[in-house]
Amino acid sequence: MTTTIDLNCDMGEGFGPWPMGDDEAMLDIVSSANVACGFHAGDPSIMFRTAAMAKQKGVALGAHPGFNDLAGFGRRMITGDSPAEIERMLAYQIGALQGVAALAGHRVTYVKVHGALNNMANENDDLALAIARAIKGVDAALVNVCMPGLLMETASDRIGVQVAREFFADRAYEDDGTLMSRKKQGAVLHDATAAAERVLRTLQNGEIVTQSGRRIPLKIDTICVHGDEASAVEMARAIRAKLEANGFAIAPFAAR
Amino acid sequence: MTTTIDLNCDMGEGFGPWPMGDDEAMLDIVSSANVACGFHAGDPSIMFRTAAMAKQKGVALGAHPGFNDLAGFGRRMITGDSPAEIERMLAYQIGALQGVAALAGHRVTYVKVHGALNNMANENDDLALAIARAIKGVDAALVNVCMPGLLMETASDRIGVQVAREFFADRAYEDDGTLMSRKKQGAVLHDATAAAERVLRTLQNGEIVTQSGRRIPLKIDTICVHGDEASAVEMARAIRAKLEANGFAIAPFAAR
Amino acid sequence: MTTTIDLNCDMGEGFGPWPMGDDEAMLDIVSSANVACGFHAGDPSIMFRTAAMAKQKGVALGAHPGFNDLAGFGRRMITGDSPAEIERMLAYQIGALQGVAALAGHRVTYVKVHGALNNMANENDDLALAIARAIKGVDAALVNVCMPGLLMETASDRIGVQVAREFFADRAYEDDGTLMSRKKQGAVLHDATAAAERVLRTLQNGEIVTQSGRRIPLKIDTICVHGDEASAVEMARAIRAKLEANGFAIAPFAAR
Amino acid sequence: MTTTIDLNCDMGEGFGPWPMGDDEAMLDIVSSANVACGFHAGDPSIMFRTAAMAKQKGVALGAHPGFNDLAGFGRRMITGDSPAEIERMLAYQIGALQGVAALAGHRVTYVKVHGALNNMANENDDLALAIARAIKGVDAALVNVCMPGLLMETASDRIGVQVAREFFADRAYEDDGTLMSRKKQGAVLHDATAAAERVLRTLQNGEIVTQSGRRIPLKIDTICVHGDEASAVEMARAIRAKLEANGFAIAPFAAR
Repeated sequence: MTTTIDLNCDMGEGFGPWPMGDDEAMLDIVSSANVACGFHAGDPSIMFRTAAMAKQKGVALGAHPGFNDLAGFGRRMITGDSPAEIERMLAYQIGALQGVAALAGHRVTYVKVHGALNNMANENDDLALAIARAIKGVDAALVNVCMPGLLMETASDRIGVQVAREFFADRAYEDDGTLMSRKKQGAVLHDATAAAERVLRTLQNGEIVTQSGRRIPLKIDTICVHGDEASAVEMARAIRAKLEANGFAIAPFAAR
Repeated sequence: MTTTIDLNCDMGEGFGPWPMGDDEAMLDIVSSANVACGFHAGDPSIMFRTAAMAKQKGVALGAHPGFNDLAGFGRRMITGDSPAEIERMLAYQIGALQGVAALAGHRVTYVKVHGALNNMANENDDLALAIARAIKGVDAALVNVCMPGLLMETASDRIGVQVAREFFADRAYEDDGTLMSRKKQGAVLHDATAAAERVLRTLQNGEIVTQSGRRIPLKIDTICVHGDEASAVEMARAIRAKLEANGFAIAPFAAR
Repeated sequence: MTTTIDLNCDMGEGFGPWPMGDDEAMLDIVSSANVACGFHAGDPSIMFRTAAMAKQKGVALGAHPGFNDLAGFGRRMITGDSPAEIERMLAYQIGALQGVAALAGHRVTYVKVHGALNNMANENDDLALAIARAIKGVDAALVNVCMPGLLMETASDRIGVQVAREFFADRAYEDDGTLMSRKKQGAVLHDATAAAERVLRTLQNGEIVTQSGRRIPLKIDTICVHGDEASAVEMARAIRAKLEANGFAIAPFAAR
Repeated sequence: MTTTIDLNCDMGEGFGPWPMGDDEAMLDIVSSANVACGFHAGDPSIMFRTAAMAKQKGVALGAHPGFNDLAGFGRRMITGDSPAEIERMLAYQIGALQGVAALAGHRVTYVKVHGALNNMANENDDLALAIARAIKGVDAALVNVCMPGLLMETASDRIGVQVAREFFADRAYEDDGTLMSRKKQGAVLHDATAAAERVLRTLQNGEIVTQSGRRIPLKIDTICVHGDEASAVEMARAIRAKLEANGFAIAPFAAR
């Protein structure tokens, strides 16, 4: 008997003349591609190429919307928009990728919110609800990839948006289930073997172990491997190999 | 027996803190709203409000994509993109409006390309084809609003994109069926009564009369009234009144 | 004996095809023009026209830098830049206006930070210092227009940047010397006569009276009249008339 | 007796999260750094770091302004601005770098126009004059780096802007003194040794040899080595070594 698990990766995060990450290599490893929608990164041509490659390699396509902030790569918090404005901004980005994906013969099946907007939504229920409404309003079949146990998941549940629960392969966790700040020592795992081991244990035990050792029981639907660092491909390969060697098949998530 | 004719108007051409035109008044007059998609004007919130108002007033919704050029309002020619890049840029913008429209409970049924990109496409067959492919690729049911007899129409025909043929209510025509440059004397009609008379004659006679007096026989599907000048609402009202007084019903176009 | 006082106004806050405010009328009333530098509003041509008009009318020219956020008009807080990054962003904008002003035959003599960045700097000493360093680094003779008693003033003092202390003609004050939030009842004065009376009393008594009635003794160097509302010109005229009728001459501030 | 020659290189052409080129290595080789000003590439922090490194390494600082077109990296022609609008856009960018350079303790001493705008100016005298006026208007001591014999040089001469004449180390020339289009076979030299030989011959013989073999006698003030390709550093080193081995000293140009 085989258990399937999804591997997702942020992609298409170049802009104009500037590339980022080795998307082609990553698309041979992961089963879901989170594609930037032109606001924090990405442009129509990069989105098209990424969608077309994903289609060709059988990788699922997700919208990866963020703040309209190329200079800050969507990592700066932008405060002052109403939830309704955020909702429309999300719908715009998801629709934009749907349009480009249609041209590339592919189809958007999920959404994963990027960076600061994701963090803010997990600390503000109105914002989390606005994002869930945007997803549902654009296409009620879209799945929202969320960190388990936080506001985005509960908001999605409340209005009937399907959720896929995500574990970050290379990030340490706080006891409340959030990611440790990158500014803290040990927040980012750099060793591919250790990260792969941790992913396997998380799936096998059905629990996240936080930095302090606390165990949070959780069913995980997808593993996030990062795409924008030099060693990202190597770590993703190690994780895939480890999972396959232990009886997991890598395939796009079925939503919870 | 009543003949129906469509009136279309560019809308949603504000950006952020800056409004443009009286869209609410125009939506009581026209039957089709060409909504800017965030590249030459418009932002997600403006797009949403325009789509929601159009829905409420029974006005058809069209994407009005242009060059990514807020500073130049899409009126500057930008040369250097391949047709494939233009195609993807169009798909992005159409999809973006589809996403926002879905949130507003409305649906995009046509495309009308804006400004310099429209002009360039009518002088470059590869570009015209790229635009037609983008429209078809995103949604094969979308209609392309074109100036009759020019390259965009023939490119659309060639690949099976439906066309609606447009007459500009306030612009003089050259003998080749193009618009007279705004820089020339007499290029823009400012008198509402004269413009309304000309529109009526054009529809009744089934021919455009150019500035030099040449007659070009043409079946027209939609009349473009402009939205971004102070007197635009007045002229649009005069045209609608004149047409209704002469037996025309104003309704979204049926594509040719 | 005549006392001089400065009137300053935000200007050049259009962008591309979108105008904002009646700058030409305002330039006949005020003595200092705070010109947007292209980040929250303004573009090189608008900056040039505003600087050229200011020169012609004998109005002093100030840089009005803000966050790089056209869509949000610089009113959204953007969190995540280091103070050093803010410092460079300020230097960029001040320099840009200096360049355009040189072309217009005018000269930048002061800086007044815009919107959310100004608010944030008055709540974060590192940010306030970064802004003061930017001003000093670009041109040590530039004056920083500040709200009296807040962090931007003290940071400027500390590193030797000259300050001009500002009173907002149409805004109510909290007891800590900050502006009442626009969201609160009574935060904005709409009556021109009442605003003019309040300005006069503030100057004559040398004290700001807060909404609660508290008196804060303060020497004021410049009065801010707003430029982006319909009634702004009328209120500015009333203030100028009231001040001139009571023995004040309107002239660019001498820094404290 | 030593002859000095300048080596210049485009730099600071990253944006936000996206780097480009190895500026630090290049700054050890060249004597003049053409720094992007935020319109086609570059942002305030990148501009600052580049200016600070240039100062530290004794490299002259030039503004490298271009069209406001990050997505197209300033390589797309944008048509529709008046020469006056271009003039102001140039002044903005030059001033912006002056502001950031002041903060970094360096000083802008020249201008070299980037990409499509440079090409267009060499084919349009009004545009060439507008650029020369912008340079003179911002700082009459600034030198304009031009391709010899083309419109930018003559326009600069006419209004008294000093010129430095440039030879491109890795580009083939047409018989009219323009660069061969990158689309043509042989337009770009990829062999470092051959390029270094050609540079040396050009300087020693005082003539450019075009692709067809035509000789154009010309005094060259500066050699452009490119910064945005992988092999750029290697070629720049080869050119510097070749020139130094043949009695040239590398130093910022003295304008003609």
